[in-house]
Amino acid sequence: MSTPFAEWMAATQARTEAALACHLPCADSIPQRLHEAMRYATLAGGKRVRPLLAHAAGELTGADPARLDVVACAVELIHTYSLVHDDLPCMDDDVLRRGRPTCHVEFDEPTALLVGDSLQTLAFELLASQPLGERQLEMIALLAHASGSCGMAGGQAIDLASVGKPLEQAELELMHALKTGALIRAAVLLGALAGTPLSADERKQLDRFAKRAGLLFQVVDDILDCTASTATLGKTAGKDEAADKPTYVALLGLERARAYAEALRTEALSALSIFGERASRLTALADFICHRQF
Amino acid sequence: MSTPFAEWMAATQARTEAALACHLPCADSIPQRLHEAMRYATLAGGKRVRPLLAHAAGELTGADPARLDVVACAVELIHTYSLVHDDLPCMDDDVLRRGRPTCHVEFDEPTALLVGDSLQTLAFELLASQPLGERQLEMIALLAHASGSCGMAGGQAIDLASVGKPLEQAELELMHALKTGALIRAAVLLGALAGTPLSADERKQLDRFAKRAGLLFQVVDDILDCTASTATLGKTAGKDEAADKPTYVALLGLERARAYAEALRTEALSALSIFGERASRLTALADFICHRQF
Repeated sequence: MSTPFAEWMAATQARTEAALACHLPCADSIPQRLHEAMRYATLAGGKRVRPLLAHAAGELTGADPARLDVVACAVELIHTYSLVHDDLPCMDDDVLRRGRPTCHVEFDEPTALLVGDSLQTLAFELLASQPLGERQLEMIALLAHASGSCGMAGGQAIDLASVGKPLEQAELELMHALKTGALIRAAVLLGALAGTPLSADERKQLDRFAKRAGLLFQVVDDILDCTASTATLGKTAGKDEAADKPTYVALLGLERARAYAEALRTEALSALSIFGERASRLTALADFICHRQF
Repeated sequence: MSTPFAEWMAATQARTEAALACHLPCADSIPQRLHEAMRYATLAGGKRVRPLLAHAAGELTGADPARLDVVACAVELIHTYSLVHDDLPCMDDDVLRRGRPTCHVEFDEPTALLVGDSLQTLAFELLASQPLGERQLEMIALLAHASGSCGMAGGQAIDLASVGKPLEQAELELMHALKTGALIRAAVLLGALAGTPLSADERKQLDRFAKRAGLLFQVVDDILDCTASTATLGKTAGKDEAADKPTYVALLGLERARAYAEALRTEALSALSIFGERASRLTALADFICHRQF
């Protein structure tokens, strides 16, 4: 596929990879093993969905691409830290991530713990030390709130507590709104905040888009977990069901989960109508998130 | 002991405890168990050495005490996150902290992992969302750098790698300069940054003080680990020696370690001479750090 959108996506993924490689500590700086492991966990490709969202939202507000690289890195570092910690033996105990051994398998458990800790710290160091414009403190506070106990980490805590328990759809949505949704929403909002200010109504609609896109991402993730192969996903497939985790597929069945994803995509796109053509990148990205096969 | 310094210390510890209690999420907000565990790990008393240093350094620059409460909380949240993660089975595997069961013993291992993660995030959320004056971004970047892979977490990585290996004094000092020193230095510099700017020379001397104070704290910690009881320390005594960890006592012997502490105290105090009477609180605090029994 070499549509203009596919080209933009590949270019944005490549520039994110380069920015991450540049902002991560060198592998030969002390402590070497920790730095090597931080680079191993982060520079493993991946879809870079959050960086793509940050860049697309930043296009909407005319943000400087160099600023968006910083935002994209910060959000991706938070995401990567959460993967490294989630894969640890005391959490999901997973051995495969992005097609490679997980960090604690390739290195060791204490190193993986410190890798996650240090990637989180680096995200905030980056956001505070690079010039990002007048709303930089708001951006840092927003990312922190989205990542912490009332956001991503809180969603993970609810997830842990709910294994083996039947959840209502409302509870499941709260869990996912925090666990995956909060950081995806932050990627969109931070990207937009790096550019010229939106009106209150525009910001409200962008936020509506961001929330729907986050939920959409998770529903599709649940569908892929039970329909795609481990080789395609680059992580262990079918593990949600095996772990008796609450998923949209478990709750709704495969067909209704697919219909729900389609409905969320429609809602996400309708929130973008206020922006007209300016939102074409975000529109294409929502389509990609909905129809991706990995 | 009811000297004015002892009274100031008790009052500052009490206001830090109150500020932490106020900034931590309520124990009855979702996810409750995580929030309860975050409060359990943080609101356990402790000496609050870093908050004391932040307040004392802030007095030097006439900083608003309300701002210093925020700085003190942020630094103490980072310190607490590091303790919770260091106590985990895959790290030091410790069961006692501040006289109570460690977080993963009282709750469970995944919860303790998320507690550490969330306390770190909260530190940066606080620093970015409360008004701290014109150098707020510099303060956030400084705390992040001091906590990450080139600071505290990096020191922990060197510590892990050095168990059972004889370290030279220079290597031991690098490890401690990162593991404990970086955050203690950050407490001093952030406290000062919350007030009126120092001259370049004043800042250099304050930094010299901060580095010496951090090293002093660690040398005394090593001495207490092998001379004080578990009951006095509120954490397992003698565990450094048992774990064959490199300490100043192992390297220098007890008497020379004591003499080294005294020399560091003298150096720390001489760095403060540029400030005259304005530094009396920091002077008293360095004396306390040197002569403490727990």
